[in-house]
Amino acid sequence: MSALRIGLLGHGTVGSAFEQLLAERAERVEQLTGRRPEICGVLTRSAGDFDAILERSDLIVELIGGVDDALDYVRRSLEAGRGVVTANKQLLSRHGEELWELARHRGVALGFEAAVAGVVPVIRVLRESLAGTRIERVHGIVNGTTNFILSEMTRTSCSYDVALAEAQRLGYAESDPSDDVGGADAAAKMAILARLAFDVPVHIDDVRFEGIEQITPADIAYARDLGLALKLIGTAERLSDGISVRVHPAFLYAGHPLASVGGSFNAVTVEAEAITEITMSGPGAGGMQTASAVLGDVIAAVSPDRARGEGVGGPVAAAAAVPIIEDVVSAFYLHMEVVDRPGVLAKIAAELGDQGASIESVVQRGLGESAQLVMVIHPLLESRLRTALEQITKFDFIHSPPRAIRVIDEKFE
Amino acid sequence: MSALRIGLLGHGTVGSAFEQLLAERAERVEQLTGRRPEICGVLTRSAGDFDAILERSDLIVELIGGVDDALDYVRRSLEAGRGVVTANKQLLSRHGEELWELARHRGVALGFEAAVAGVVPVIRVLRESLAGTRIERVHGIVNGTTNFILSEMTRTSCSYDVALAEAQRLGYAESDPSDDVGGADAAAKMAILARLAFDVPVHIDDVRFEGIEQITPADIAYARDLGLALKLIGTAERLSDGISVRVHPAFLYAGHPLASVGGSFNAVTVEAEAITEITMSGPGAGGMQTASAVLGDVIAAVSPDRARGEGVGGPVAAAAAVPIIEDVVSAFYLHMEVVDRPGVLAKIAAELGDQGASIESVVQRGLGESAQLVMVIHPLLESRLRTALEQITKFDFIHSPPRAIRVIDEKFE
Repeated sequence: MSALRIGLLGHGTVGSAFEQLLAERAERVEQLTGRRPEICGVLTRSAGDFDAILERSDLIVELIGGVDDALDYVRRSLEAGRGVVTANKQLLSRHGEELWELARHRGVALGFEAAVAGVVPVIRVLRESLAGTRIERVHGIVNGTTNFILSEMTRTSCSYDVALAEAQRLGYAESDPSDDVGGADAAAKMAILARLAFDVPVHIDDVRFEGIEQITPADIAYARDLGLALKLIGTAERLSDGISVRVHPAFLYAGHPLASVGGSFNAVTVEAEAITEITMSGPGAGGMQTASAVLGDVIAAVSPDRARGEGVGGPVAAAAAVPIIEDVVSAFYLHMEVVDRPGVLAKIAAELGDQGASIESVVQRGLGESAQLVMVIHPLLESRLRTALEQITKFDFIHSPPRAIRVIDEKFE
Repeated sequence: MSALRIGLLGHGTVGSAFEQLLAERAERVEQLTGRRPEICGVLTRSAGDFDAILERSDLIVELIGGVDDALDYVRRSLEAGRGVVTANKQLLSRHGEELWELARHRGVALGFEAAVAGVVPVIRVLRESLAGTRIERVHGIVNGTTNFILSEMTRTSCSYDVALAEAQRLGYAESDPSDDVGGADAAAKMAILARLAFDVPVHIDDVRFEGIEQITPADIAYARDLGLALKLIGTAERLSDGISVRVHPAFLYAGHPLASVGGSFNAVTVEAEAITEITMSGPGAGGMQTASAVLGDVIAAVSPDRARGEGVGGPVAAAAAVPIIEDVVSAFYLHMEVVDRPGVLAKIAAELGDQGASIESVVQRGLGESAQLVMVIHPLLESRLRTALEQITKFDFIHSPPRAIRVIDEKFE
């Protein structure tokens, strides 16, 4: 019976939880893999010797985060023939192709389930269950912080700032929340999901993203009136002339499988003709939950039924890059503050009509100088909507620039 | 480049869809496995020679259904060293241990993702992603026919018979629907899920099941008033002194991840301390959807990174059998038709109280000879509730025996 010597890089929330979980489940890991796991060394930002840990380890678990140091560690581990399990989405969304290629070339495992949506098994399902499926689209709630904030705003009608403060108090948001609330964190995860779904290279720089900082209680209240739920949605989809990968707030019709995902949970829906759709949901963060996803990858990396080979080392080699489409078709919710006087709606409708935008519904609240106008617009190219909004902004009866939020509505699709 | 010769047993809805899907995705399968797939023979109930097909095949796909013939075919295939992919839940819920043991012994693949919940990847997630996790409970909507009928009854307030006829008209229910609506189909699937979740042998005979034939529009209307959704729920759970595996109609509180699963979709929630919970949902039936799950298993069975070994041949060898607990604790909804006169509620409450049943809420509708009394009872052992109901049935003011439906409510747990 040989030991399974694990070198652990990083000892923060997830690293500590992984160490604890591994100890609790050591007997089970031994039953499954035939090897007794042990932590043979821990590297933190302030202590430990990477070379010494690498030398005596069979497998490296990278939970130290960041990009540059982590890239160096993972690269050197793979080059030394060690399997690696990582939760590092920023690393893979920037350097995934190099690392997956290296793992394939060396025939070693590179597991990364914990990098996207925590314990939700979307990586394994995309790579294995759906390996033969031609995937059309992936929609995901892949950031728990923003989902918690939007859920709070929906539940209590509070402002964005109040909901953010509550998220920080409960540990769902960091003291500097900008990566989460601005959409960059979700963008990194969607780059990885798009790579797996479509087998083409996708870098985080290919992902357009917007955050939730501009969402107001009024948006959420109007959405509720319209029967919609507001979420920060990542989308990766196959279009006729390329792919689109993007993250932005979006209204979902009430029956959408992501509409009922509340709190800090994550969820991903995969759509394809042959499968209709599959949705997976669960905790997107949390030390023990993320550690569980890491443990699943550790077991897979060393199970006797898994030779070291292409499928384990990462996704199949990417096909040639395809065009990344920036300008896509979407339905929109528009929110404007206007002076309520005769002809206002007609002028707005005319500008929209000039760009081919047709109005699905209109709600007006208030009168006189402070009326709020909310519209839902049938799907059209984003660029055409932007052109219309630029014109509308110039009217003297518009108090502040119109705000546009996308609507994902099966009725339109 | 060698061919991947697939012997196909069964050519009904799923078999035909699999043949079509395999042709469409042949190039992708070749990319992933290095082998070009081809159907080298088809066996139907009326045509084809199993021995000849086995002789020239590399892999057998069993979609012929039934138990006895299928057992013979799968057993002989594994004995001949062929990998097998099957969608046959009845076969595995009765003879799984023998077949998994045979696959392990021969070192060949035995894939069965399509046997439970169609394309929902619950088998792979339990066997791989959660291999290291100590699972506490699995709740599943694993029968699409009954979920469609209950969804229709909820949506249109129609009777069970009308909803069943609609399900038959749309092809969601067979002309003899008894296996589905009576719960036996779901019971077979829950036996397989319990085996994987707890690694102990579970036979379909270990699963208690009830169907949905007795559900009335009044039950659903009352449930709506109480904020609950009615589903046919399979439960497999670890108890202090054994496990319980059962299928029965149950009311779910509105926030439960299975409460919003509508139509013919299937969904499974897996609960464990380390992961909190994961929910997976998608189409539970449909020829192409089930064929997609079969294709995923075919690819996994022959991928170069998968040696033939324990993990692929089936779940790990079962631990010793543990006690199957029949009498479990549950909250209940009770529906009674009573004569409305003074003292009726007090007498009912006294009988319940004698068995330790405490009343959470009461709703009474109607007056005089035809009052309907609906109660929700806090969790207690089923046997104690049954004892109370036997006594209550004897009262002369009870028009028909009380009906009891379980309630799954996080508030009580």
